[in-house]
Amino acid sequence: MMELLNDRGVERVMRELAGEMEADFKRWPEFHKQPRVAAHSADGVIELMPAADAEHYGFKYVNGHPKNMREGYQTVTAFGVLAKVANGYPVLISEMTLLTAMRTAAMSALAGRELAVPGARTMAMIGNGAQCEFQAIAFHELVGVETVRLYDIDAAATAKVVRNLEGRGMEVVACASVAEAVRGAEIITTCTAAKERAVVLTDDLVGPGVHLNAIGGDCPGKTELSRETLLRASIFVEYDAQTRVEGEIQQLEASAPVTEIWQVLRGDAAGRCDPGQITVFDSVGFAIEDFSALRYIQGQVLAGAAHEKLDLLADPDDPRDLFGMVLRAGG
Amino acid sequence: MMELLNDRGVERVMRELAGEMEADFKRWPEFHKQPRVAAHSADGVIELMPAADAEHYGFKYVNGHPKNMREGYQTVTAFGVLAKVANGYPVLISEMTLLTAMRTAAMSALAGRELAVPGARTMAMIGNGAQCEFQAIAFHELVGVETVRLYDIDAAATAKVVRNLEGRGMEVVACASVAEAVRGAEIITTCTAAKERAVVLTDDLVGPGVHLNAIGGDCPGKTELSRETLLRASIFVEYDAQTRVEGEIQQLEASAPVTEIWQVLRGDAAGRCDPGQITVFDSVGFAIEDFSALRYIQGQVLAGAAHEKLDLLADPDDPRDLFGMVLRAGG
Repeated sequence: MMELLNDRGVERVMRELAGEMEADFKRWPEFHKQPRVAAHSADGVIELMPAADAEHYGFKYVNGHPKNMREGYQTVTAFGVLAKVANGYPVLISEMTLLTAMRTAAMSALAGRELAVPGARTMAMIGNGAQCEFQAIAFHELVGVETVRLYDIDAAATAKVVRNLEGRGMEVVACASVAEAVRGAEIITTCTAAKERAVVLTDDLVGPGVHLNAIGGDCPGKTELSRETLLRASIFVEYDAQTRVEGEIQQLEASAPVTEIWQVLRGDAAGRCDPGQITVFDSVGFAIEDFSALRYIQGQVLAGAAHEKLDLLADPDDPRDLFGMVLRAGG
Repeated sequence: MMELLNDRGVERVMRELAGEMEADFKRWPEFHKQPRVAAHSADGVIELMPAADAEHYGFKYVNGHPKNMREGYQTVTAFGVLAKVANGYPVLISEMTLLTAMRTAAMSALAGRELAVPGARTMAMIGNGAQCEFQAIAFHELVGVETVRLYDIDAAATAKVVRNLEGRGMEVVACASVAEAVRGAEIITTCTAAKERAVVLTDDLVGPGVHLNAIGGDCPGKTELSRETLLRASIFVEYDAQTRVEGEIQQLEASAPVTEIWQVLRGDAAGRCDPGQITVFDSVGFAIEDFSALRYIQGQVLAGAAHEKLDLLADPDDPRDLFGMVLRAGG
């Protein structure tokens, strides 16, 4: 994955991936969809995220363990598998830690392109962890963001992003508070990892016309925005059934109106209607995004990108003769 | 997997695996359990089967495509993953096509040991496909079966099993009909692949005291026994919530009484109560069996069994610096 990103360039992969995702979201009704399947434990969650169309089945394995970072592990680690629906055979296993970071950012930028005020050029980023640079690049490439204003409770995280984004065509401003970071920003991305009901952006800091890209609230009991902000906003989600359980809208009544973003991308529903409107993309990550990402990687591999062959599937001469295959392998 | 089976011997692996499974079933309440997650298509099904205890999380990917056999592919193909609950990191990816064949047979034999009449020595096997030899070996090793009587609508399948079981200490009899196969058998295993409501064993052929090991009815709309037989029998299942949807008991009212086999293995519920009783193990396959199998393989790998290392997980120096890892890899 690192080779692919460096060979093609992160920016180009981001654009291509967003293109695949947009195309798939526009044919949303064709997909077999379901909320992800989660196993919660004291320290985190392990999830399986399947999605399928008529030809391909994909799923991602992903964990979320906020404490991992302190122990030198990734908060989020993932891999994914693509298979053929016709015979059920897996055809691709891919790392998806990096790929999830890419697709999450691409999805945010696709939504941001539809929902931010036209001509938005400044984005504030609250939380400067592993996802931050990917978000900045995606919004730069797909929305035209030129300035990112960073804040994290840990200044070292902010310094890391400043360093990593050097020379990528954006103005990068390290800020000392949330209030300073959101100054003049038409887009605010919240992306923190704390597993709790938090308010990382108080309601008084959310002015008219702002688009909120809420990434970090993605688990039951884990939110980042204030309920008051949500009540003032038009809310857009990936997949209603899943976001009700995992997203910021956990804080609202089950009947609170939201719009699935695929409808906006298809032109079936309105995105932003007026310049003063507050919009929220309540992103939790949905399986079709991973499906698109796996399909993209499959395309790259078929076009010659680095890969290795795994000997993971039994292949007896006669499919009924699984036992004979073992016997013959033993000589 | 073939190397492991040949090096240790199929019989020994079967016994060891059954031991792991029995130990895990005896601590059933400690597991995070759920019905498997299925994506059905015209030609088959793709399923994810997760289970976890406090330390490990495991899941299996498995397909079921009855038409595959005609096209030279396995009806059932599988692989599985074991991960640490504490940090969500995967630690093992294993083939599970062979391993599923092994664990399915081991589970059948564990149930058969509890449910067949004491001293049962003859088993009829209706359906002589990929699972057949494994079942025979498991019942030979764990229940003491000495004679297997085979029937399949395709005589070539039966001939394959006769050939493969040669020299493994069992008398193997090829039969020309179901009626001939069940003659004198205290145990009848049904294991066919047709995806439909079928009756591969008519009710008149099920005499008093017989134990039915019903393997092939494992999908909504796919059953092998007659409803009349079920109404005469005491029924044992792996996991009630899943078997109601997938097992032979789809044919019964939702309130029909069944016993989960872990309760019998623990001694909390009765198995066979009298010699005339008809017992059915309505097996559909449950995720804890795969969990046990993956843990067994992990133990073998840690003890030196053949394996290869995969570079599938991102491992940046600073977990928050995922993007910097990519940059540095690019030089």
